[in-house]
Amino acid sequence: MKILVIGASGTIGRKLVPALSSTDTIITAGRNSGDIRVDVTDATAIRQLFQEVKGIDACICIAASGPLDNFSTLTEKQLLADMQGKLFGQINLVLIGQHYLNDNGSFTLTSGIFADIPYKGVTGGAIVSGGLHSFVLNAAIELPRGLRINVVSPGMVEDSAKDFGHLFPGLQPVSMQAITDAYRKSIYENNTGQLIKVY
Amino acid sequence: MKILVIGASGTIGRKLVPALSSTDTIITAGRNSGDIRVDVTDATAIRQLFQEVKGIDACICIAASGPLDNFSTLTEKQLLADMQGKLFGQINLVLIGQHYLNDNGSFTLTSGIFADIPYKGVTGGAIVSGGLHSFVLNAAIELPRGLRINVVSPGMVEDSAKDFGHLFPGLQPVSMQAITDAYRKSIYENNTGQLIKVY
Repeated sequence: MKILVIGASGTIGRKLVPALSSTDTIITAGRNSGDIRVDVTDATAIRQLFQEVKGIDACICIAASGPLDNFSTLTEKQLLADMQGKLFGQINLVLIGQHYLNDNGSFTLTSGIFADIPYKGVTGGAIVSGGLHSFVLNAAIELPRGLRINVVSPGMVEDSAKDFGHLFPGLQPVSMQAITDAYRKSIYENNTGQLIKVY
Repeated sequence: MKILVIGASGTIGRKLVPALSSTDTIITAGRNSGDIRVDVTDATAIRQLFQEVKGIDACICIAASGPLDNFSTLTEKQLLADMQGKLFGQINLVLIGQHYLNDNGSFTLTSGIFADIPYKGVTGGAIVSGGLHSFVLNAAIELPRGLRINVVSPGMVEDSAKDFGHLFPGLQPVSMQAITDAYRKSIYENNTGQLIKVY
């Protein structure tokens, strides 16, 4: 299987890519590293990516998480900025990629726990993740040619706990193994429209 | 109680306003009608509204629903346009209104069934509603001074079934009584962070 991993050098990507490499052909992509450079906030760059890398069976996006925000001073402008990569970028990957992926290929997007577990300071991230969940449910019944789509919603991943754990007291880290298993589940099982929650 | 109803002349508002008027003081607002004119896509107009109408105990927004879309040709630009009123407008009402409502006041927003029940042609509406649900969960733990927030997620309302029913075969209309009861539940009970689904 030919698998495109966007955001391959991030916390999750660093563990996921080796886990997939033993059985499949992986093409890594990222803003600043990887086989291919791509900025997912740029629709033209996404289109170029799919025109360059032909014959993709699975497209995985592990986008950066949104910054923290302050509810009492939060503005529409900041929210919109925080939505660019993780919401519009991932949606654009699907809207554009639907015309390029191999028949019966799959998209796997990444949301996050704040879609349904509230914490202070993550309003933007929550809206993005909640929006992505509903997008995936709907895209699953819209996609042509047997294409599938799922979204992995990670809790706080083990490898980030040292840096972010203090911001979310009470949130137990989830193992990197559980996270990579969730992406494998999306790619290798034949489900679609699944919200794969890892927490 | 002093209740501000934004979108008072719409399908739901026309039934809700009389249902609340017998016990409370209602101020109606809308783009083209009502006691006060306001365009919720305009942050300045929202701020002006709250400066004008003082002492609000409950702010209800029954925003217009998004247009239908075509998944195979949908673009980021169209999605963003479809999000202006129902997503950013309603969020802005809360972000700005949090500084004006009376202590222990409440916000009641409006999402929709497509957040978790997919239909073809409503991807934008789904993203908006899913995003709103996660926003409300998070805003509930952020709001100051005892302010509450809930969202009513209507299915296809009875009074719209004649116009839209053919687009969503299988979707059973919900009664206007059930819908107005949901808004009353949000205003008069003391819950917060509730997704009140009426379908």
